[in-house]
Amino acid sequence: MLRKQLFKNPFNIDMMNIEKVNVAEKLTSFKEYWSPKIVGELNQQLVKVAKFKGDFVMHQHENEDELFFVITGTLYIELENKTLELQAGEFALIPKGVLHKPYAPEEVHVMLFEPAATLNTGNLINDRTVTDIDRI
Amino acid sequence: MLRKQLFKNPFNIDMMNIEKVNVAEKLTSFKEYWSPKIVGELNQQLVKVAKFKGDFVMHQHENEDELFFVITGTLYIELENKTLELQAGEFALIPKGVLHKPYAPEEVHVMLFEPAATLNTGNLINDRTVTDIDRI
Repeated sequence: MLRKQLFKNPFNIDMMNIEKVNVAEKLTSFKEYWSPKIVGELNQQLVKVAKFKGDFVMHQHENEDELFFVITGTLYIELENKTLELQAGEFALIPKGVLHKPYAPEEVHVMLFEPAATLNTGNLINDRTVTDIDRI
Repeated sequence: MLRKQLFKNPFNIDMMNIEKVNVAEKLTSFKEYWSPKIVGELNQQLVKVAKFKGDFVMHQHENEDELFFVITGTLYIELENKTLELQAGEFALIPKGVLHKPYAPEEVHVMLFEPAATLNTGNLINDRTVTDIDRI
């Protein structure tokens, strides 16, 4: 049963621009830690990749849930009452309002999903805050 | 600089429930093809995992962009003018309105990101349509 008429590319999307993204390859294109780069956008959400090493700040996002998916390495996420340990192929969802501090004794590569409005340091503005995020 | 006051778990989130998700492990818990399972939810978006083998139907989503991330195997996504070939660690974003047909000669395991409203067959309702999606 056809639920509704097929419509022919109604948004004038240039389909030549639809290309796959190799996450590991994107991660070779930069070296900075704690500086997420945008690799995709869908439904007002951003897909980002980042390299983490060392400690980040404990922070929270007032309105946005956040997903951390580990590509390589080990990511720790300290919460108020426990610490999560994530390996490659594992993810954690940090709901809005929950204090969390990502840290990584060794370099870890992650993929992030979060709304376009999300600031990396959440409720804090400090020297770790990245406001102008590169698209790679 | 503190942008706004820290607020203490304002949503009464049970932090004991925040656990990591191992994607490969989730994928061992079911066998059906073309039947996505919910493994997470954030910002009104769902994270799903699925096993695909064989051909799916060409379809489109009127209002939702969709992300396919390959965990293991090879996923093909046929578009109107070309076919994408995705390996493990690669993803593709299919914008709303774009006709696409996923297919996989051999079993492929994928992770999907899409709005909670998304129907797997998009504009079509047929025997491949899954309306009552399991959470695993």
